Amino acid sequence: MGLVVQKYGGSSVADAEGIKRVAKRIVEAKKNGHQVVVVVSAMGDTTDELIDLAEQVSPMPAGREFDMLLTAGERISMALLAMAIKNLGHAAQSFTGSQAGVITDAVHGKARIIDVTPGRIKQSVDSGNIAIVAGFQGVSQDSKDITTLGRGGSDTTAVALAAALNAEVCEIYTDVDGVFTADPRVVKKARKIDWISFEDMLELASSGSKVLLHRCVEYARRYNIPIHVRSSFSGLQGTWVSNEPQGDQPMEQAIISGVAHDTSEAKVTVVGVPDKPGEAATIFRAIADAEINIDMVVQNVSAASTGLTDISFTLPKTEGRKAVEALERTKPRVGFDSLRYDDQIAKISLVGAGMKTNPGVTATFFEALSNAGVNIELISTSEIRISVVTRADDVNEAVRAVHSAFGLDSENDEAVVYGGTGR
Amino acid sequence: MGLVVQKYGGSSVADAEGIKRVAKRIVEAKKNGHQVVVVVSAMGDTTDELIDLAEQVSPMPAGREFDMLLTAGERISMALLAMAIKNLGHAAQSFTGSQAGVITDAVHGKARIIDVTPGRIKQSVDSGNIAIVAGFQGVSQDSKDITTLGRGGSDTTAVALAAALNAEVCEIYTDVDGVFTADPRVVKKARKIDWISFEDMLELASSGSKVLLHRCVEYARRYNIPIHVRSSFSGLQGTWVSNEPQGDQPMEQAIISGVAHDTSEAKVTVVGVPDKPGEAATIFRAIADAEINIDMVVQNVSAASTGLTDISFTLPKTEGRKAVEALERTKPRVGFDSLRYDDQIAKISLVGAGMKTNPGVTATFFEALSNAGVNIELISTSEIRISVVTRADDVNEAVRAVHSAFGLDSENDEAVVYGGTGR
Repeated sequence: MGLVVQKYGGSSVADAEGIKRVAKRIVEAKKNGHQVVVVVSAMGDTTDELIDLAEQVSPMPAGREFDMLLTAGERISMALLAMAIKNLGHAAQSFTGSQAGVITDAVHGKARIIDVTPGRIKQSVDSGNIAIVAGFQGVSQDSKDITTLGRGGSDTTAVALAAALNAEVCEIYTDVDGVFTADPRVVKKARKIDWISFEDMLELASSGSKVLLHRCVEYARRYNIPIHVRSSFSGLQGTWVSNEPQGDQPMEQAIISGVAHDTSEAKVTVVGVPDKPGEAATIFRAIADAEINIDMVVQNVSAASTGLTDISFTLPKTEGRKAVEALERTKPRVGFDSLRYDDQIAKISLVGAGMKTNPGVTATFFEALSNAGVNIELISTSEIRISVVTRADDVNEAVRAVHSAFGLDSENDEAVVYGGTGR
Repeated sequence: MGLVVQKYGGSSVADAEGIKRVAKRIVEAKKNGHQVVVVVSAMGDTTDELIDLAEQVSPMPAGREFDMLLTAGERISMALLAMAIKNLGHAAQSFTGSQAGVITDAVHGKARIIDVTPGRIKQSVDSGNIAIVAGFQGVSQDSKDITTLGRGGSDTTAVALAAALNAEVCEIYTDVDGVFTADPRVVKKARKIDWISFEDMLELASSGSKVLLHRCVEYARRYNIPIHVRSSFSGLQGTWVSNEPQGDQPMEQAIISGVAHDTSEAKVTVVGVPDKPGEAATIFRAIADAEINIDMVVQNVSAASTGLTDISFTLPKTEGRKAVEALERTKPRVGFDSLRYDDQIAKISLVGAGMKTNPGVTATFFEALSNAGVNIELISTSEIRISVVTRADDVNEAVRAVHSAFGLDSENDEAVVYGGTGR
């Protein structure tokens, strides 16, 4: 039996009871003969409470100090978790990100991991301890300041440690049973996925699935660390994310992995762009200089009569104002007619390997939407994904229609998905 | 202008308002041309809340993890304080005990400082920052684990940093105006002491005065760091503790510094001890082996008729049961008659330099108690202190009588002492 990295999110350790429940589960893994390294997030609302305190003393808290503040949250949960494990009669030691050797750059609030030097963790588990590591945090390489990794940081910590420690698996414990073929709150017949490839999971993550973040999956793929996403409230097998189906997992790989949707984006259309070389470049350079990540980009065929075209793209709603302002400033140079901003859109994506080699997929997708009376505004495709933009109001119906059309519906009337404390 | 170390306790930074108020005071010192290093405790009730959480997950939390947990408290307050200072337009950086170079032994919960290597703090203040350091915590020399310094740890951190940084003064901010000639809650006419020697302060601290702990004063004396104890709620001068009166402080040094009292002790009397060599040694070896610190020890002259004597000593009430049990086990060897345990006692101490060379002091002390109708049960003296044990019920009257007899009463009817947020 090898080494296992387990990660528990804030909802799993929301209170003393949660911590004790998680401690029991960790001890089980140890009893089964594994070396166990645990990555833990801050308890439930701790981070929000700390942010609230920061806002009370300063409207614009500095990054270095803000990171120092927030990392207190994991310090509390990890120490309590180690105590709870010891109380069950097993040796445990807790480590800060810095002590665990999580070395980052110095970009406070969203630092990137540069290196992981897990010497102390290795030594701790080799001496028989369960090692508890603070998620979401590291130490900057040059200035030795405490940093935080930003959204999904604890998952990334777990995968990075799993890679550095050559773990068998990185188990991500959460409050759902795994990755589903669609959001079960929207599609009652959504099914838990037993296994999914890194590539498909990356597409789902970037298409709106929130169970795993793109960054964490990307890291796992690069180091080929299998991820097992599962509920901390049940003993069920969850979803394996890996290069190849794991162990007992069924080998039958569906072409279609699932349907994701995303209502967090807005659409910007630049109307009446002169159809000549360099205009699009000017537009997207302006967006890039404003440090805005865009998602889909579509350019219509220009009307022969006018020599003008329209360029549309999607981006996070939160960046909408900044993008519009940046584009307004390019207007004198580009000479477009007008800007349209629309934040009442939804993106629906179908993800699955082998899509390109299966010509019927696109047709079935569009027919399903059409039959449901859903209008398509933009289309974009990749090797393993088709995405469309529709009205936000249509999103639930559209997802259900597509899910059903591709035979993803479970035979049960209703998927049992969200674990509760009673399970 | 040199470097100043300021220490703020938990009551001074109990909430966001307190943090902002303290930030203003720190910035004042910086504007006055000082380099400023600030040591801060955890906010108000944070430590108690963390202890409560620990008790919920484990009845006997391990020292290493308990220290990891508790140190989250200072991490929060120091980060918030740095933010609040930056919000006032001044550069500030916060540092954990480990980052500040507070190196300790590995005795979790009451670690001792072995060394202070304040390179990062020095660099930070030399670049113009105000450095905020977490009090009460350090890092163990060998295992690199996070440690806490135990009671009064933040004051000790402040003095230790002041020594390592060669500071002009260590300012200890608290919720009272300084050190008083007696506890102002007992003696309304108690006066604030403007200056007191290290030696007298040490005696006051070990005699029940709670403003400064013995450990912190001892450290300051060893490195000759002047301490200025003052209120964080007022702008008043407080009490200077140093080898020699400081700056504008009045040079007239009263022989008597003050009257301290302590009701936290109990008295054990071993009755009927054979008056022969080795018996006392056996008794106190038993107490020492139980790791109990005793305070006063008195042995009566033995009665010629029986060859038996009584030995009395005082110790913290919290150690009472352990001491009695340890002594019971020695009974077969020592052959004493019985044990008496009495926790309804008080210790009253008069502290002042030159007491030995001033024969009237002891007489005046005893006369004052006698006139107040207070019976003396034990007496013990040092070079600069006389202590007596009385009934606990008599303590307030005894302290007032002694305070008055030595002319310590203020001319004001009532001392204004305890600062409130409005001051």
